[in-house]
Amino acid sequence: MSEEIKKFDVVFECDAVNPGRMRTDMQVRMLEPDPFECELATDEMGFHGGDGSAPTPLMLFSGGLAACLMTQLRAFSKRLKVDVGEIKLATRLHWQGVQKGREPYETEPVSFEIDIDMEGSASTQQRIELIEAAKKGCFVEQTLMRPNIIGHRLKVGNDWVQV
Amino acid sequence: MSEEIKKFDVVFECDAVNPGRMRTDMQVRMLEPDPFECELATDEMGFHGGDGSAPTPLMLFSGGLAACLMTQLRAFSKRLKVDVGEIKLATRLHWQGVQKGREPYETEPVSFEIDIDMEGSASTQQRIELIEAAKKGCFVEQTLMRPNIIGHRLKVGNDWVQV
Repeated sequence: MSEEIKKFDVVFECDAVNPGRMRTDMQVRMLEPDPFECELATDEMGFHGGDGSAPTPLMLFSGGLAACLMTQLRAFSKRLKVDVGEIKLATRLHWQGVQKGREPYETEPVSFEIDIDMEGSASTQQRIELIEAAKKGCFVEQTLMRPNIIGHRLKVGNDWVQV
Repeated sequence: MSEEIKKFDVVFECDAVNPGRMRTDMQVRMLEPDPFECELATDEMGFHGGDGSAPTPLMLFSGGLAACLMTQLRAFSKRLKVDVGEIKLATRLHWQGVQKGREPYETEPVSFEIDIDMEGSASTQQRIELIEAAKKGCFVEQTLMRPNIIGHRLKVGNDWVQV
């Protein structure tokens, strides 16, 4: 039984609407493996033309990245029977933007660092093996390993055009 | 003046704590360009050992991705004077997991699709140029273009070890 290989799909949809200011309201749905939905919103601060009514998009992104790794550390600590007690992550994400005159700016990631502090009686080797397993199981981390995954389509009349 | 090149940093920190179940509580801070902070939480549904008390990590990630592109579409539509009115994004994110026996599963992204529907009087060419500018300015999209950006350190006693 230990050699049985199972594949499973994980599918999320997000419908976002922005009427005209910086606030965006979203319906987010997990379709697979189990239906679950929620509402989220983002906004920007005043310096970026927003009203500060919700977290910024990068706050959701930062939280999603940290929490995805955290969830796999927790889930796999149970599966691997590694005693780690409370887990704390300190995540720091650094991007840089470049702007020429008044043109739209361009951005790039500079460094993302995740510091992991775990309680419990596990050995350092066990903790390292747990982190390695969690990295491979973390949907967000694996997404960040794979460039050019996003496709875009623009609605033109009743058609969709690849952009 | 139009040739002046400015660089700016965008820095976020996220402190996450998980006491033992699936719920993770987070303090998220924007440090640059302007201080702003919020609290976020994630949880899992019962099938994954959670209590369903908050959105899942991939819901935050999905919302962060969609909202980051949306925000740049809106901001750059103003800067480029492209009349697009209300903007709607339909985002679909698909991952696949592979599990051997009872080992921790491994994951990979399969496809991310973002369908963009904009109102207003802009020409198709203007809309395409706006999307291209927004992709280059979207922090999350540019992060997904760059593999191997994340570093991890484990706390071992009073030291930090690269993992």
